[in-house]
Amino acid sequence: MSAAPAWSAAVLTVSDGVAAGSREDRSGPALAAALTDAGFGVLAHEVVSDDPAAVAEALRGLCARAALVCATGGTGLGPRDRTPEAARTVIDREVPGLAEAMRVVGREQTPMADLSRSLAGAAGASLVLCLPGSTTGATQSLAAVVEVLPHALTLLAGETEHHHGPAPGAGHAEPGRPSPPGRPTPPEAPS
Amino acid sequence: MSAAPAWSAAVLTVSDGVAAGSREDRSGPALAAALTDAGFGVLAHEVVSDDPAAVAEALRGLCARAALVCATGGTGLGPRDRTPEAARTVIDREVPGLAEAMRVVGREQTPMADLSRSLAGAAGASLVLCLPGSTTGATQSLAAVVEVLPHALTLLAGETEHHHGPAPGAGHAEPGRPSPPGRPTPPEAPS
Amino acid sequence: MSAAPAWSAAVLTVSDGVAAGSREDRSGPALAAALTDAGFGVLAHEVVSDDPAAVAEALRGLCARAALVCATGGTGLGPRDRTPEAARTVIDREVPGLAEAMRVVGREQTPMADLSRSLAGAAGASLVLCLPGSTTGATQSLAAVVEVLPHALTLLAGETEHHHGPAPGAGHAEPGRPSPPGRPTPPEAPS
Repeated sequence: MSAAPAWSAAVLTVSDGVAAGSREDRSGPALAAALTDAGFGVLAHEVVSDDPAAVAEALRGLCARAALVCATGGTGLGPRDRTPEAARTVIDREVPGLAEAMRVVGREQTPMADLSRSLAGAAGASLVLCLPGSTTGATQSLAAVVEVLPHALTLLAGETEHHHGPAPGAGHAEPGRPSPPGRPTPPEAPS
Repeated sequence: MSAAPAWSAAVLTVSDGVAAGSREDRSGPALAAALTDAGFGVLAHEVVSDDPAAVAEALRGLCARAALVCATGGTGLGPRDRTPEAARTVIDREVPGLAEAMRVVGREQTPMADLSRSLAGAAGASLVLCLPGSTTGATQSLAAVVEVLPHALTLLAGETEHHHGPAPGAGHAEPGRPSPPGRPTPPEAPS
Repeated sequence: MSAAPAWSAAVLTVSDGVAAGSREDRSGPALAAALTDAGFGVLAHEVVSDDPAAVAEALRGLCARAALVCATGGTGLGPRDRTPEAARTVIDREVPGLAEAMRVVGREQTPMADLSRSLAGAAGASLVLCLPGSTTGATQSLAAVVEVLPHALTLLAGETEHHHGPAPGAGHAEPGRPSPPGRPTPPEAPS
């Protein structure tokens, strides 16, 4: 879809039922397809139970490999739905506007979107999105923000090199993550 | 208003003036009336000062009795306005979309809605809403989200039994809280 | 612009480049001008690097002098962008609706506004706004909420005196901060 280098992405399905084999994973493959369509290189798709410690461990592992990590499931109000709480132990900086934007778009579909506890945040140079567990909710939430994700990842990775590291291509990129494209930052981009 | 079993609700008026008897409680009774109109069974209405420890203790007590607990007052910017901070010590999972939705609707009435620090979150299987202290602010904020509250409470209570407990009606419901109605979960409901 | 007493304000430019002298500060002066135009008395404009401890210390110092403290910079996704995290150690009560309103308005200009991690909160009787580092982002974000700031500051300062202190003019105002104007609170103002 784009000639620019693909950003790496990973999908994490969070569901007791899917992890136990008693439920089919629909939102995970749908997210992976949507990410591929948007030009991301999906390098991993894992499944984990709703256990918060397991979710956090899986998120950490995927952040070590991919620039973008999209979790699906566990953002609702069931007692086992604790993906946002698990993700908060992984991210170091919340990006509230991405979650707000998902819910703004979601409200246009259904007032139930107010109950989604979607969360977005940076974990080092990776971006974590916690999306609903329903296929519709997950893909619509991703679609609400997918346009700005490449710029977000450029800031996360590019700025790292600008401030702390060698020039792009000097081997500083993490495994599975391409060197950030050398796109010029808009002169008035938020910083 | 509905043939479905009523969910239990409680109102907590947070106000130094009302607690001291020097100010009339208008928002509390207005909230109780609005909840009754919406089909909730209001089983308690308490009054507490703005003291955060007292607010937290009152919220905890009401959450042990009611599925929905609506506080009114202490969400503004006066130095004694610390209801959200008190509620954060009681809830275990924030539901940011409900507070966002209240402010979206509030902004259509007045830009001052931006100053409302309304908060929503789950405390165990109960849902806590911290609403403004003005009668208009409290009732408009509740009206902004009341439509999705039964589904939220079904998820909170029904999912408990699905994951952890006996079938509905087996005595697992908390005092004052009806067994969750056996409504089917929409196939694509967020989880 | 107004016959009412001016509220005091301070600007903090957060930027490694500006602090090092290698980059021109454009957003800071633009914010100071916008605040003056809105009727605020700008009594200080400081510059600090992106170091979170330095940002927090500067914010604390300015809150001791001014009713409104506007930081610009460090709200983005670069690894050094940690102004919101620094500000969270200074504020005692977040005001999420102000940051939400900034992003709502920002989204009308550019979807990149979702990446702004703007933050608003009260630190004692002062109000802290963390605004983007771009000139456009900073001034548009301020403009989105400037209308409600005098009322916010009246609540923060006036309510102090209502609950805890002597009548206005009795010497309780902090240095550099005028006694709050004796404007009547709207009968249904949020509290």
